[in-house]
Formats: sequence, C-alpha cells, structure tokens
Amino acid sequence: MELLLVDKIILVSSFLGLVVALFQFTVIQKIKLGPAGGLGQSLNSEDPEKLVPEIYGKIMSGANQFLKVEYAICTTFCLLFSLVIYGLVSWGTKSSMQGYLTAGAFLTGAATSMLCGFLGMMIATYSNARTTLACANHGYTLGFNTAFRGGSVMGYALCSLGVLVLWALLTVFRKVYPDPDDWEILFDCAAGYGLGGSTVAMFGRVGGGIYTKAADVGADLVGKVVAGLDEDDPNNPATIADNVGDNVGDIAGMGADLFGSFAESTCAALVIAAAAVEGSHSTLFEAGWNAMLFPVSISAAGIVICILCGFYATNISPVREEKDIEWVLKLQLVLTAFIMLPVIYLLALHLLPSEFRLEGVRLDEDGTPAKIHGTPFKAFICATMGCVGGMIIGLVTEYFTSHSFIPTRELASACKFGTAVNIIQGLALGYKSCIIPVFVLSSAIFVSFQLCDLYGIALAALGMLATLACGLTIDGFGPISDNAGGIAEMALFNPEVRRRTDALDAAGNTTAAIGKGFAIGSAALVSLALYGAFVVRLRVKTGVNILEPTTFAFLIIGCMIPYWFAALTMKSVGKAAGEMVAEVKRQFSLKDSKGKTLLDGSTELKPDSLTCIQISTAASLKEMVAPACLVILSPLLAGTFFGVQAVFGLLTGSLGSSVQLAISMSNSGGAWDNCKKFIKNGFSDDPELRYTKNPKTQEREEKDAAPKAKEAHDAAVQGDTVGDPFKDTSGPALNIVMKLQAIVSLVFAAYFAAINHGHGFMGNIIL
Amino acid sequence: MELLLVDKIILVSSFLGLVVALFQFTVIQKIKLGPAGGLGQSLNSEDPEKLVPEIYGKIMSGANQFLKVEYAICTTFCLLFSLVIYGLVSWGTKSSMQGYLTAGAFLTGAATSMLCGFLGMMIATYSNARTTLACANHGYTLGFNTAFRGGSVMGYALCSLGVLVLWALLTVFRKVYPDPDDWEILFDCAAGYGLGGSTVAMFGRVGGGIYTKAADVGADLVGKVVAGLDEDDPNNPATIADNVGDNVGDIAGMGADLFGSFAESTCAALVIAAAAVEGSHSTLFEAGWNAMLFPVSISAAGIVICILCGFYATNISPVREEKDIEWVLKLQLVLTAFIMLPVIYLLALHLLPSEFRLEGVRLDEDGTPAKIHGTPFKAFICATMGCVGGMIIGLVTEYFTSHSFIPTRELASACKFGTAVNIIQGLALGYKSCIIPVFVLSSAIFVSFQLCDLYGIALAALGMLATLACGLTIDGFGPISDNAGGIAEMALFNPEVRRRTDALDAAGNTTAAIGKGFAIGSAALVSLALYGAFVVRLRVKTGVNILEPTTFAFLIIGCMIPYWFAALTMKSVGKAAGEMVAEVKRQFSLKDSKGKTLLDGSTELKPDSLTCIQISTAASLKEMVAPACLVILSPLLAGTFFGVQAVFGLLTGSLGSSVQLAISMSNSGGAWDNCKKFIKNGFSDDPELRYTKNPKTQEREEKDAAPKAKEAHDAAVQGDTVGDPFKDTSGPALNIVMKLQAIVSLVFAAYFAAINHGHGFMGNIIL
Repeated sequence: MELLLVDKIILVSSFLGLVVALFQFTVIQKIKLGPAGGLGQSLNSEDPEKLVPEIYGKIMSGANQFLKVEYAICTTFCLLFSLVIYGLVSWGTKSSMQGYLTAGAFLTGAATSMLCGFLGMMIATYSNARTTLACANHGYTLGFNTAFRGGSVMGYALCSLGVLVLWALLTVFRKVYPDPDDWEILFDCAAGYGLGGSTVAMFGRVGGGIYTKAADVGADLVGKVVAGLDEDDPNNPATIADNVGDNVGDIAGMGADLFGSFAESTCAALVIAAAAVEGSHSTLFEAGWNAMLFPVSISAAGIVICILCGFYATNISPVREEKDIEWVLKLQLVLTAFIMLPVIYLLALHLLPSEFRLEGVRLDEDGTPAKIHGTPFKAFICATMGCVGGMIIGLVTEYFTSHSFIPTRELASACKFGTAVNIIQGLALGYKSCIIPVFVLSSAIFVSFQLCDLYGIALAALGMLATLACGLTIDGFGPISDNAGGIAEMALFNPEVRRRTDALDAAGNTTAAIGKGFAIGSAALVSLALYGAFVVRLRVKTGVNILEPTTFAFLIIGCMIPYWFAALTMKSVGKAAGEMVAEVKRQFSLKDSKGKTLLDGSTELKPDSLTCIQISTAASLKEMVAPACLVILSPLLAGTFFGVQAVFGLLTGSLGSSVQLAISMSNSGGAWDNCKKFIKNGFSDDPELRYTKNPKTQEREEKDAAPKAKEAHDAAVQGDTVGDPFKDTSGPALNIVMKLQAIVSLVFAAYFAAINHGHGFMGNIIL
Repeated sequence: MELLLVDKIILVSSFLGLVVALFQFTVIQKIKLGPAGGLGQSLNSEDPEKLVPEIYGKIMSGANQFLKVEYAICTTFCLLFSLVIYGLVSWGTKSSMQGYLTAGAFLTGAATSMLCGFLGMMIATYSNARTTLACANHGYTLGFNTAFRGGSVMGYALCSLGVLVLWALLTVFRKVYPDPDDWEILFDCAAGYGLGGSTVAMFGRVGGGIYTKAADVGADLVGKVVAGLDEDDPNNPATIADNVGDNVGDIAGMGADLFGSFAESTCAALVIAAAAVEGSHSTLFEAGWNAMLFPVSISAAGIVICILCGFYATNISPVREEKDIEWVLKLQLVLTAFIMLPVIYLLALHLLPSEFRLEGVRLDEDGTPAKIHGTPFKAFICATMGCVGGMIIGLVTEYFTSHSFIPTRELASACKFGTAVNIIQGLALGYKSCIIPVFVLSSAIFVSFQLCDLYGIALAALGMLATLACGLTIDGFGPISDNAGGIAEMALFNPEVRRRTDALDAAGNTTAAIGKGFAIGSAALVSLALYGAFVVRLRVKTGVNILEPTTFAFLIIGCMIPYWFAALTMKSVGKAAGEMVAEVKRQFSLKDSKGKTLLDGSTELKPDSLTCIQISTAASLKEMVAPACLVILSPLLAGTFFGVQAVFGLLTGSLGSSVQLAISMSNSGGAWDNCKKFIKNGFSDDPELRYTKNPKTQEREEKDAAPKAKEAHDAAVQGDTVGDPFKDTSGPALNIVMKLQAIVSLVFAAYFAAINHGHGFMGNIIL
C-alpha cells in the first residue's frame, strides 16, 4: 500500500507520541517505593515512607476494582448495543456490510477509549505516591516533573492511540470500499468509532463522577456529622475511596470525554467532507485521501507540538520554586496553541486543494442549499477560531473560578452572611460566567459557519482540540498532585511535604478549570458539527424549519433533557453519599475489646476502607445506567416514533441548554471550591472575618498564620459540598449529553430515514 | 355604532366583572378597623386590636411608597420608550399613523397594567388587617371569605379592565382604519398593547421580586446572624418591609405578569388571524369582526364563569373549618376550567365560520407554507389543550412542592444530613420537576400547532388563561392571608388567631404553586404564539432554518439570556439583603439613655421600619433597570445589527431555556419553603430527627406538640433562604423574559424588515 503525505504525518506523529509516553513512564519508574526506596535524604524525623506502599496499594487496587467492574458493564452494554447498531443500520441502509462495519467501528472506538482510560488510570495511580516521595525528598522540580510526566503519559498515549486506531480503521475500510464513489458510505460507517468513544465516555463520566463525589461528599459529611475530622484523615475509612475517586472521575472520565470529542469531531468532518455536492466539479472528496484526512492530520500534528512544549517544561525551563508551577502550566497551554496555528496553516496548504466546494446546510435566498467555496486559508481561519476561542473560554473560566480574581473573592466575602448567601451568590456567579464563553462560542460558530458551513464548525472543534495532548497532561497533573497530597497526609509526612503537594494541586486546579472550559467549548462545537453531519447525511435540502409542530415540540423536550439528566446524577450522588455516611458511622460506632472506638484511638480496629470503596463502586455503577439510557434512547425513540424532524428539535434544544447548564454548574462548583480554599488560607482583607482557633488543627493554622473565621469557613464548606456534584458529576457529564445524542442520531440516520420516509411510525397516524 | 354579538359578550362580561368587584369591596369594607371596630367577641384577654391600625397603616404606606416610586420610574421609561416605538415603527412602516397608534396602544397597555397593579395592591393591603380581625372574631368562614374577596376584587377588576380597554382600543382603531383591508395594520398596531402590559410587568416582577426577597432574606439573616428572632417578630425592623414585599411582589408583580400574558396572547391571535392568505377564499379575517374577536370573547366569558364559581365558594358552600380551605380553593380552579370548556365550544360555534383558512408558518413537503383548514371544533380542541394542560402542569407543580407528597418529604428527610445535601437534593428536585410539565407543554404545542398552526398555539394560551380571574383571586388570597398572619403576630394576638391565618396561608401557598405552574405554562405558549406572529408579520415563506450561521449563533446566545438575567436578579437580592442586614444590625446596636438596646427591651427605642422600607425600595428600583434593559434591548440590538435571522435564533433559544429555568427555580424554591414548614410542624416518621427544645419559642412548640430536630430545621431554613430569590424573584420573572422578548420583536418587526431587507446593518458587511 502506498503511503500518502497525510498517512506519513499521522503515522510518524502517533508513533512518536507512543514512544515518548513510554519514555516518560520509564523516567517515573526510577522513583522506587518502599521504606528503603526513597531517594536522598528524607525531610522527616520518623519514617512515613513505610506507610506509603500500603496506602498506594489500596488506592491502586480500589481504582482497579472499580475499573474492572465498570468496564465489564461497559463491555456488556457495548456488545449488546453493537447488535442493535448492526441490526438497525443494516435495515436502514439495506446493506448488512454497512451494519457490520458500523458496529465494528463502534466496538473499536469503545475498546480504544477503554484502553486509554485504563492506561491513564494505571499511570496516574502509579505516579501519585512517587510524586509524594519526590516532593518529600527532592523539592519542587522533581515533584512537578513526576506529576507532569504522569499526566503526559496519559495525554500522549491517548491522542496517539486515538489517531492511530482511527487511521487503521479507515485504511481497513478503504480496502472494503476501494472505489472513491463509495467513500461516503465508508465515512458513514466510521462514525461508529465516535459513537463507541462517546458511549464509553458517558459511562466513564457518569460512573466516575458519581463514584468520586459519593466518596468526597460522604467523607466531608462525616467530618461534619460525626466529628471535626480533617480532610484525608487516616481514621476516616472513606478517605481512600475519595482518593480513588479522583483517579476514576478526573482521569478516566475526563480522558474518555475528550477522546470522544476528538473522535466525534473527526468523524463529523469526514462525513460532511464526503457528502457529494450535486453538479459540482472540485470537492474535497474529489481531491482525494490527502484532503479527506486533513482533519486527522491536525490532531496528529498536535501531538508532536505538545511533546516539544512538554519537553520545554520538564527539561529546558523546569519548575524551581512554588511560584513557577502555575506559570509553567499556563505557558504550556498558551504556547502549544500558538505554535499550533502556523502548523495548521501549513497542513491546510499542503493537504487541501486550493479551492474546494461544499454543499451547505444553510440556504441561499432562493431556498436552495448554499454552495460553499472553501480555500485552505478559510479552513485555517475556522480552526483558528476554535483554537483561540478555546483559549479565551479557558481563561474566562479561570477568571470566574480562581481565587486570584474578584468573583471568587466576592463570594468569599459573602460567606460572612452564612451558607444561604454563599449558595445564592455562587449560583449567580455560575450563571454569569456563561455570558462571555457563549459569546465566544457564538462568534466561533458564526465565522466558521459562514466560511465553510458545517465543515468549518468541525474544523473549529478540531482546532480547539488540537492541543488535546497538552490539555490532558494538565488534567492528569491535577488529580495526581491531589492524590500525592492525600498520601502525604495519610502517611503522616512532615507538613512541609503536604505544603509542596498542595502547591502543585492548587496550580493544577487552576489550570484544570481552563481544561474544563476547553472540554465544554469543544463539546458544543462537536455537537453542532455532528448535528450538521446528521442533516447532511439525511440529504435534507430545505434546511431545518424550527417552526414545525414536531420540531418545536421536541425542541422544548430537548432543552429539558439536560435538566432531567442533572436531576438523575445529582440525586444519585446524594443517595450514594448517604450510604457512605451510614457505613462510616457504623465503623465509628464499633468498639474493640477495651471498649474503644476508632476515633478514641483504638489499636485493634482499623478503618475498613475496602467496604467504602465497594459502596462507592456499587452505587456509581448502579446509578450510571439510567442517565446513560436517557441520553442514548431519547434520540432513538424520537426518531423511531416521530421522525427526523423530532430529532432535529431534540438536538437543537439539548445543545443549547446543555452548554449553559454545563458552564454554569462547572463554574459555580469551581468557585465554591476555591472560595473554601481562599478562606482556609486566610482572609485578612475583610474585617468581619475574625481569626478563630480550631483546636484540632491548631498546628496547621499557626503555620499558615492566616486569619480565619469559623462561620465563614463553615459556609464555604457547605458551598463546596454543593459544588462537588455540580463541577465533577453533572456539569462535565453534560458535555457528553450533547455529543452523544448527536452522534447517536448520525449513526442511525439511515435507520430514521427508512421509517415511513423519515416521519417515524407515528408520522402518518396522528392528526 | 352597531354592536355585534362579540361586542355584546365582551361589554356585558367586563361590566359585570367590574360591578362584582365593587360589590365584593363593599362587603370587605364592613369590617371596621380600630380598637372599637372589631366585630363581636374578641378571643383575646388583652386588646391587640389596638395595635392593628398602626401596623396596617405602616404596611399600606410602605406599599404605596414603593408603588409611587416604581410607577414614576415605569412611567418615565414608558414615555421615553413610546418615543422610540413611534420613531422606529413609523420609519419601518413608512407611516407615522402606525407609529402613533402603536405607541398609543403601548401607553394604553402600560397604563392599564399599572392601574390594575395599583388597584390590586390597594385592595390587598386593605384586606389583610380585616382578614386578621375576621379570623380573630369570627373564625374560618369570614376569615376565608375576606381574604378570598380581597383576591377576587383584584382578579375580576384586572380581567375586566384588560378586556374592556383592549376592546375600546380596537374599536377606536377601527374608526381610523374602517376598511377591512387595513385590519392587518390595525392589529399590528394593537400589539403595542401587549408590549405595554409586559413592560410594566417586567418592572413589577423584577422590582417587586427584589423588594420582597431583599426584605425577606434580610429579615431571615438577621434572625440567624444577630439573634434567634422569630419570623414577624415586632422588634425586627425589617418585618414590615417583608410584609410590604408580599403585596408588592406577589400581588402587583403576579397581576402584571398575567395581565401581560392575557394581552399578549390576544394580540398574537389577532395578528395571526389578520394575516392575509394568498389566493384563499374564506379566511377568519373575511368572516368579519365577530370571528376576529373570538379570542377576546374567551377571556370575557371566563370572567363570568369565575364570578359564578367564586359566588359558590363564598356563599353557597362556604368554608366552615380548617380542612375545607384547601379543598374549596382547589375546587375553584378545577370547576372553572371544566365549565369553561363547553362555553369555549359554544363561542367557537357562534363566532367562528364553519370553515376558515390560515397560512401556516410550517411548510408542506414542497417547501411552501402549509394551508391550514380550521374549524370551530379544531379551535375548541386547541383551547382545551391549553386549559387542561395548564391544570396538569399546576397539579404537577403542587405534587413537587407540597409537603403532602413524596418529593418534599424526601427533601425533608435529606435535611438530616445538613444544608449541603438539602441544597443538592432540592436543586435535583427542581430539575426533575421540569419533566412532566415539559411533556405536557410539548403535547399542547404539537396538537394545537398541527390543528391550527400558530393560531392554535395562541388559542391554547388563551385557553390556559381563560380562568385567569379565578387564578388571580387565589394568587391574591395567599399574600393577604400571609400578611394577616404577620399582623396577628405583630399585634400580639392570641396564638389561635395566628393558627387560623396560618391555615389560610398554607392552603394559599399550595394553590399558589398551581398558579405559578399556570403562569409558566401560559408564558411559554404565549411566547411561541408571539414568535409565530412575528414570523407571520414578516411574511417569511421559507420557515425558520435553524442551521443558518446567524440563527444558530443567536440560538446559543438566546439560551444564555435567561442565565444572565437570573444572575443579575439573584445577585441583586443578595446585595440588597446585605444592605438590609447592615441596617438592622445598626438599629440593634443603638442604645437608649439607660444603655438598653431594642433587643434588651428598651422602652425608648422603636424599630425604625421606615428606613428598612426605604432600603428595599431604593435597592429594588435601582437593581431592576439592568435586567429589564437586557431583555428589551437584546432582540432590538440583534435585529438592528444582525437582522431577523438573529432574532429568530434569539427567541428560539430564550424560549426553550427560560421554560426549564423558570420551572426548576420556582419548584426548587417552593419545595424548600414547604420542606421548612413540614419540619417546623413536626417530623415524626423519621427516627433520626429528634425533638430538641428551642427555649426561645418553647410555647409554640409545646402547643404544636411536634417533634423537631434543630439541625434538620437549620438546614431547612438555609434551603428556604436560597429558595427565596429562586421562587419569588428570578424564577417567575423568567416568564416575562420570554414573553417580552417575543413581543418586542413583534412590535418592531417592520423596523427590522426595513433595515437592509431584514439582514441588519452588519448583514452585508461581514464575510
């Protein structure tokens, strides 16, 4: 087989990504665990390092345990669903080959996503204890590098695998459909890849989100309800589950989410590009394989750039002291994005024809589909809108959630009036934080749509995701540092170690906010691109008239779906947290032979973290099914019974509504979290907040020398607890709601079209 | 002038409404205030009745003071805005007469709305103290009847004035445009009436909402922050402001809101019905004045039916004991709705032609506007969908917010885990409560749209609002009873009196929830009808393609507007409540000559409620401008710069998003409120909630003999405080967001169409 330019770019980049990931892993491996394994001189008089392997082992086995069960459920679901796909697609297209290939692509996507999630989790749990040790024995440089490398293994591996597997899949499909006239079918089948990625992401985000917050909220509530325990107190049996949750939710969940976005935006771009333009001469499609795979090449090139920038962070200009951390992380994000831009331009120039035509979904004045004239420059502008837009959304997210800026400080100040005011103002903050991101998103949509119709939207999404490897690195960095802090606390390290891991964690939180902004923004663009691909696929030539009875009725229903989804997931967190509290209370009430309980310092009883892990696991896996079914079944049922017009309405409403709810929930939650941290670390500029001593944590407070008011702090803690499911369960999962509904529609487009000419079973019966 | 059948129906009904309102007022007047004015034997050993006139006077003057300033601002705004309307409409239609008439209709609508609000407030503040006295001296029958009559004066007067003034306006306009060929213009101008009503409603809802919750939240917070004061404690200077707020927010605000809905849905129906159908023979419009005014006749007939049913409640089968109250109120709602149905059918049969044609906004398969064949029976079905749909939405609202049902009881049970869990579960409850109402709404939209296109939607809205007079009566009943309770508390009546007013209040709260459901449901239908009228008015023949760059970009912005609006209003409440707390704290810190403060029982110092009233007034009036401008300016700017496609997107998004946010906010708030009441009144079925004695309110608790847990109650109070701005400020004001944006678009349709052929100033410049 002859390799074209685009094939070479993809293969070289993705192999490079895999090699570098492996290399980073070997570097992390050099830090040995175990009492004798620490490097250099320990900071501690006692030897807490003895405790590390045990805690590390518990977290790792908890994470494994969860992932094993989750993936078992996922696999079962995916196998069953692939039968449905095979059946309905074969029936709809009247070609069982298309059914086979779509189902195959689906399973491939799902398997790749699971593999990436598994790798990410492994490396994250592998790196957390090593980060603690690096911080304890070496200071900031090695500590930062260890966590950063841990994150980057996941980032590079996920992106490389994603690109590589998709390329392989398309290459195999090309063997089946060698004739370019059949490529439209080929890319239709490939859309199954995106569906597979997103289906696993849905389970990962929802299951992981419920897991992590059940443990987190449960552990926090026990602190309130039973006794004034510190966060990560080793006596609290829910602590290990909380640390497992960070990996499960933030690493595996986020990774699967963004993998899904990448896979789906690529599929959307391919489907749109492959659509024939009636009576046209030069389409993308006729320009050949190089032009068709241009979208994939953007993602591939992004890996190389992220590797170069990452190398700069760990080796050329490493972190030396605390204040470097946030700067280095932010520089990564900005640097990769700006280097990406000229690269995209070069790719466009070399891979795309100098002019190409696309048939638009928008209409000309005469009511016929507009004919779009694309050029490499226009394509470049579309990708740039996404890339720069993502950056702005990320920075706005940071502005609203970081306690370095006014909004969160105002929130902290409002805490002096108590919990209710904190909640009211925090919700208002989240609502307000939608404004600029939505304007940015609308501008990106408007410009890309004008320039290259929906192909432009897909390119904007890919532009936003071009620096995915870097974004994932930083997303992984956060939970690894967070875990490292937890381990430092549980292993009774010198507080200085915890201070160092906290500094890493704080910077990670800030940049994670930026990552969340990217995730939401790209999800919105991806959904719109998929929606467009769905319309293109159906060969609708009259636009989508929103003022049709079915369409408008389902628009309202679509707007409601995210609320339904949020209700389900939030309720699940509340319920699972309640079970966790009951279990911890039970353990605290047990008495040993001397009549002492765990909290009295019993030497016989040990906190039973395994049971807590099992509760979180069981609850999250049970509770993730209903929301996932809601999202997958809603477009299927709408299309089956009420036809494609209903699906149009559903997708429109769900997209518009999910974006706002996702942004506001994530940002309210983030702001509450940081508001709590701000007050905890001292809040001297407000005279109303007086210093009150908490006898249990006196040592820490004196060290921080920070004024702190008990009441305001309590209010902030309540806000943080409310924010937990907002920012880590419901909010981010809404990204997947919009994407998954759109890709389900796209994959089943032919099936919908086959029922009663796209009017659904009820189409001719009623009225 | 010859009076047709429809004119007679309208005139007779509305005069009857006014006469009955006056009669009810004279009945209330018979209860005299003042120490010697009480009827019969007092329940009390002391004579609290002496205190009543003073408290009553304060509430009334506070309400007057607010309304005076609010209406001054409103009037200024409306006068200025009428110039804008005159200018832009004249320019757009190239007819200064149309500009004059539209601006005139606008001012008429605004003046009518203000007059109704003023009357409602007057009668409500007039009735509150009389309800207290009736409860004290006569028991349930007279107590209920007084509050019910107070509400009904407002209900009947508002509906009658609304119908009568609109009729007069149309009759005058008909003198200007006697030729039926010009009626399309005539009804276009009449749309200004709806805009006037809604503009005042926006100020009323937002200003009133901020006022009432600043006072309420402020008073509650003082109770928490300063000392364990009871609700309505006479020493708390914010108490009077709180009572004023009930009138300002719930009576004037709700009244103006529903008046706006009524006026707008009628205008939408008229504009749609008047639109010419190309090449058709028998349109509604050609059937003449009787057919055209059919929508108004529904509202008129509704008044008579509500009067009859109201008479049944007060005279034929009056309330005799506590358990009757809720039943009688609910029966009112159901009875009026069911009697209404055959009446609507009769009206349709007699006023509408046996067949009529409408040009649809929905498209036929060939892409041309569908031709709708209407019949009286179809019209009847449309109105029925609204009438019955409203009922179901109301009952679902009650299910989710009343503590007689599972959801709120579960919420109460969750309070044992503390505030955070209560908030999480309460938000989830609100989200979940969207599901059924949205399905009901979608079904109503689907069926009415199918049967009579957008005329059907307008009829469905009118069907839902047909029993408006009854709904307003019950809406007024609640705050009057609530105030009566406040007065009983402040005047130190025997607790038995408070128990009676509380019973009235509780039933009022439950049925008020139903009213809120109606308000939201009707707002959604009205907005859609107005949106449709806008499209019809623009003579768009190609449908609204949502997949246009401008349209989709503005769809996302439209979905964001309700969030922006909610952020503004919630932040305002938080801010104003903070000012209130500071003022009350200042008063509590003052010392008299003996060194005693208010709370120590100083005899020299008096709580200065006037300053609190001024703070609430000033804050609410200052804060209401920004949200109102956001809503009014957003469609104007979108249309001016980006053209009608942008407005389509904006309206679609805003409608879909507002509905969900309004329902979820109102219901979360309502559930938190009732959850608090449920726990306060005892919560014995949960073993975790133990009885704890609160020394300050020992007497009441022993009387209630109810178990009560301090912690759960505290959590419930926090939830209630969060819910205050949800359910009484932001939530209900979102109704007006969707309606107002749509009617602004409708009124300025010709102006938008005149700029660059409807593409806006930026239309040809960009890309």
